[in-house]
Amino acid sequence: MPDLTASATNAPPHAAMQQDARMWFETLRDKICETFERIEDEAFGVSIYADKPVGRFARTAWDRPEGGGGVMSVMRGRIFEKVGVNCSTVFGEFSPEFRTHIPGASEDPRFFATGISLVAHMASPRVPAVHFNTRMLITTQGWFGGGGDLTPMKLDAPESHEDAASFHAAFKTACDRHDPDYYPRFKEWCDRYFFLPHRNEPRGLGGIFYDRLFTGDAQADFAFTRDVGEAFLASYAAIVRRRLAEPWTAAEREHQLIRRGRYVEFNLIHDRGTLFGLKTGGNTEAILMSMPPEVRWP
Amino acid sequence: MPDLTASATNAPPHAAMQQDARMWFETLRDKICETFERIEDEAFGVSIYADKPVGRFARTAWDRPEGGGGVMSVMRGRIFEKVGVNCSTVFGEFSPEFRTHIPGASEDPRFFATGISLVAHMASPRVPAVHFNTRMLITTQGWFGGGGDLTPMKLDAPESHEDAASFHAAFKTACDRHDPDYYPRFKEWCDRYFFLPHRNEPRGLGGIFYDRLFTGDAQADFAFTRDVGEAFLASYAAIVRRRLAEPWTAAEREHQLIRRGRYVEFNLIHDRGTLFGLKTGGNTEAILMSMPPEVRWP
Repeated sequence: MPDLTASATNAPPHAAMQQDARMWFETLRDKICETFERIEDEAFGVSIYADKPVGRFARTAWDRPEGGGGVMSVMRGRIFEKVGVNCSTVFGEFSPEFRTHIPGASEDPRFFATGISLVAHMASPRVPAVHFNTRMLITTQGWFGGGGDLTPMKLDAPESHEDAASFHAAFKTACDRHDPDYYPRFKEWCDRYFFLPHRNEPRGLGGIFYDRLFTGDAQADFAFTRDVGEAFLASYAAIVRRRLAEPWTAAEREHQLIRRGRYVEFNLIHDRGTLFGLKTGGNTEAILMSMPPEVRWP
Repeated sequence: MPDLTASATNAPPHAAMQQDARMWFETLRDKICETFERIEDEAFGVSIYADKPVGRFARTAWDRPEGGGGVMSVMRGRIFEKVGVNCSTVFGEFSPEFRTHIPGASEDPRFFATGISLVAHMASPRVPAVHFNTRMLITTQGWFGGGGDLTPMKLDAPESHEDAASFHAAFKTACDRHDPDYYPRFKEWCDRYFFLPHRNEPRGLGGIFYDRLFTGDAQADFAFTRDVGEAFLASYAAIVRRRLAEPWTAAEREHQLIRRGRYVEFNLIHDRGTLFGLKTGGNTEAILMSMPPEVRWP
């Protein structure tokens, strides 16, 4: 178990919330898996999917030799071509080269991190891909971070803007409940982050992104993070249900496979979480669970 | 045209070789394209490819706004599922953050670079993928660099080792003609470079890799670089011809698409040339020509 406890000198209030935060992320994971499996079942009436087997999540636990571990939940379904949900709780010491980059780690290299991350690549090019994650980090400081963003295959299509509008609205409601400044700030942060400079293209149609959030009230920040998780699940499930029965063409599927290449480029060249994980000996299978199942660079 | 000429003060001998080097890389490109197109034709007698159209290279020129440009030659064929050969000749000034990383650039940021690079992804999982490039660089110093490496899909199969042995032997012959130390040094350099730490796997079965080669005799280094190019073409063409008629299974094809994912991971996370190009405003289409046409991360 982690060394950072509520009783440690100068411990941030987050230190007392380790188990609560971890439990919440795992509860959210269970709700997400249940909802997505239900969507796989619902497609019984849709002829596009009729000959395909219903997907179910498979879970794989992994250990981090330096402390902690996680559980990967992966479903390869007929609606969800590949969706991975990873819950991890890890602790230990940051290596000397990372200490200076992480708030509060230069004084004491010990850390605790717990979180959930999710990427869904959908069988239908009419259903947007999605990414979501939230986490709590503790060093000598403590904070929450996370967000979610939507990647429709056609960034200019009216349907894509309709989907994005409902996704954004759900996050705005969650944000506004806590602070009227959150939504504009976190939406802009997301647009700035999920951008491919070498393509001069956004990765998708955005959502929200926040990091190092500590308002002074760790419980309020945790409540906000829970609302973000609920907003993600409700709004994304609604988008999937709205779009899944729309038929698509082979050309749309081909276009989807090419757009997925941009996703790969972003994650392997720019995504800080991916690179941080791969370069610090993280679980490669869990980190690269975000890779799309089938991709083309024609 | 470049500012770096043979008449400049302290110019390395390479400055007088700009046009010769460029012309050689373009001549080699023409030979490669001709040979690969002939292989596409030869497959007429092979039933696996009978219903597929014969591939031909298409050329696209691109300009670099800061100076120079290149020509991408791409063939999407029945044997060569996707092969890109890029010749580029670029010049200008290194940005301040790069000057300290490039030999001879901190004194004077001007540079000239000419080279050829090639990546081939093959339709058959029985035919190895290949990467090859050679280049000449000039700052206040001058040097040659390059190499080639082979990526069979099954690193452990006896056929793969047979192919790799002939590929390595061709480079050894080319190396030994110039210096008995070259082959062991450049082979080891290649094995060290084409390694995926996050997978703890080599990318393929190697070849040779060299950089910053200046023996004091630039013409001899150029002759060596030409021999490397000829050795690559002869040995790889022989491997393709030896393997192309072997039938393969759907399972082997699936395995190939997964192995190609490793290729993508290496190029986007580790390859210095790719990242250098993408982060310094290089031609994205030309740089990412190396991406495989179809990839799976199941």
